[in-house]
Amino acid sequence: MGFPKVGVIGAGQLARMMAVPANDLGIGFTVLAAHNSDCATQVSDFVIGDYRDVTAVLDFARGCDVVTFEHELVPQSVIKELERTGVRVFPSASAFLYSQNKIAMREKMDELGLPNPDWQVFDGGEIHLSFPVIAKTPSGGYDGRGVFVANDRSELDEVFNAVKSPLLLEEKLNFDYEVSIMVARSPHGQAATWPATLTVQTNGICTSTITPVPQFNEQLGTLAGHIALTIAAGIGLVGVMAVELFVVADSLIINELALRPHNSGHWSIEGSVTSQFEQHLRAILDLPLGSTAMTAPFAVMGNVLGGEKTDMYRPYLHLMARNPNLKFHQYLKEVRLGRKIGHITLLGDDLLHLNREIEHAVDYMSGVIDE
Amino acid sequence: MGFPKVGVIGAGQLARMMAVPANDLGIGFTVLAAHNSDCATQVSDFVIGDYRDVTAVLDFARGCDVVTFEHELVPQSVIKELERTGVRVFPSASAFLYSQNKIAMREKMDELGLPNPDWQVFDGGEIHLSFPVIAKTPSGGYDGRGVFVANDRSELDEVFNAVKSPLLLEEKLNFDYEVSIMVARSPHGQAATWPATLTVQTNGICTSTITPVPQFNEQLGTLAGHIALTIAAGIGLVGVMAVELFVVADSLIINELALRPHNSGHWSIEGSVTSQFEQHLRAILDLPLGSTAMTAPFAVMGNVLGGEKTDMYRPYLHLMARNPNLKFHQYLKEVRLGRKIGHITLLGDDLLHLNREIEHAVDYMSGVIDE
Repeated sequence: MGFPKVGVIGAGQLARMMAVPANDLGIGFTVLAAHNSDCATQVSDFVIGDYRDVTAVLDFARGCDVVTFEHELVPQSVIKELERTGVRVFPSASAFLYSQNKIAMREKMDELGLPNPDWQVFDGGEIHLSFPVIAKTPSGGYDGRGVFVANDRSELDEVFNAVKSPLLLEEKLNFDYEVSIMVARSPHGQAATWPATLTVQTNGICTSTITPVPQFNEQLGTLAGHIALTIAAGIGLVGVMAVELFVVADSLIINELALRPHNSGHWSIEGSVTSQFEQHLRAILDLPLGSTAMTAPFAVMGNVLGGEKTDMYRPYLHLMARNPNLKFHQYLKEVRLGRKIGHITLLGDDLLHLNREIEHAVDYMSGVIDE
Repeated sequence: MGFPKVGVIGAGQLARMMAVPANDLGIGFTVLAAHNSDCATQVSDFVIGDYRDVTAVLDFARGCDVVTFEHELVPQSVIKELERTGVRVFPSASAFLYSQNKIAMREKMDELGLPNPDWQVFDGGEIHLSFPVIAKTPSGGYDGRGVFVANDRSELDEVFNAVKSPLLLEEKLNFDYEVSIMVARSPHGQAATWPATLTVQTNGICTSTITPVPQFNEQLGTLAGHIALTIAAGIGLVGVMAVELFVVADSLIINELALRPHNSGHWSIEGSVTSQFEQHLRAILDLPLGSTAMTAPFAVMGNVLGGEKTDMYRPYLHLMARNPNLKFHQYLKEVRLGRKIGHITLLGDDLLHLNREIEHAVDYMSGVIDE
């Protein structure tokens, strides 16, 4: 029994960052990329192919011991065909569904007795929710895409007529803040959570995270862990998953699931003994999971969003000189307005200082400030 | 000005580990490998070529913004030709000499007023040292190779007749223990040391390290830093360097220099805010250096040496289950007796516990113990 090889469907920054622990652990690593300009191809073996093409994916999988995903777009039919032909693929199609279909996810959370907002499926008929409501396309949305606020029936009908398929409607919660908790689970059923993370959102995009959640008391931390572990076991998760939660006073309400390494877990690269990327590899290979303890009292992560600047090298030179503790992650993606092109993490015990430094760093990288 | 590309001459585990921060920082990365079985080729772009062949090295360098080394075997003539043709290559030939030629190194340390053992060059004539002496070939030795103990003149002559070239003779010090200190320096002259590291040697090979040196008082720590910084500035170092030192009571005496990332700095991957591999990239690119602060009170690193076992996957599965805090680094080199094929690091505050766990882990990996 030698070292196994993992194949990742998708070649963006998540696959790129997963290549690091594969290198450390001696795990073979390859990615299925759409284009040779995809950013993981610069740091990994790769195959060019279309993730919707079952033949291409099966060909790719033949060279791998385990196949996993970097995004939710891989069709259920493709995953099921991998499973049918005996490919070890994690998460399984039946679990990955809850990352791909928000209606199926809401049904499953109800079944598990976990806290959903009020919700219903809308296909143009009656609604029992009060306006305003959140209307979501069941699949394909992220970073605020595919999510709409409808203040009245005419706005809702407008969305429905544009989308032309059933929508998930959810009550518009007046939440206090949003958090995320990462959890890993192996085929053996070993599971581990990290401390929950505050996700600071701007225009529907997560701009920064703080771990652990500063506002949390022990009870909320335990509750978040309980919810994440219940979902992981309930859906048969293998790999890592982000559970995004709304906080309303002392209640946690499930927002979304992502069955893959997630932006809200990037802090764990430096901030935890085991990063989400290493843990994902351990989980899908059924290796024992690593410790999820934090390496510092606080970890603050800021997303670098594409702005006016196209050169990202000179700004980080400036920032390195200013603060020798900043940890940079550059995805080498083409700079486009608002696109996540990198992130910066800082660890320490003075949260005010950490927040200020990260805010400065990402604003400087994006060109919002000049010095 | 976009992201630069670094080319490493050599494709062993040091180049392999340097690929990780290149990925994080968005730095392009390629290696000049002797064979496509060299372990860095699995995680990096690579070119096959002979590092002694100036044409091959020049071809390789044309695709890079900066060229550096992973080992000391690259001939001075090749490095000088790179410099002559305008390639940015770090360390420079004039600095790298002290990593390649132990006689030149001893002369330079004397010139810098730094603590050498008594030494002389021996070419078959008179000697002023008392036996026993250490006889070293000036170049090419490491891990105890090229180093001989001569108890009397006849043994020395025997070595000389076998080697057939001048030897460096050094007094055989009755030292208390051996330490190493890593230092980084940039073309701008910015320099930084990490805390010194105890290097535990078995049969001339470093088997484990403890950082910081438990026996050190503040004075010895400061002295080690002073020596490392003096050498770095004195030889015009660009990149990272290990300074190996003998400790005799309250004195530090220079043993050897290695102008590259070094086994005694592997602990810094998890144990320092900035690893030696990231710092080497920052230094040769003239980026501001990162913090060398430790992330835990102690970092213990154990080398996994090739033993009876050839399968290295199953043993680490066992060890991961035993201790979720162990950090594994597998080089994916062919297992040969006594060869460094990986390392394991553990951080914490209970040194006795850390030592015990690392000793167990490396003995189990090597097959010395069965459970």
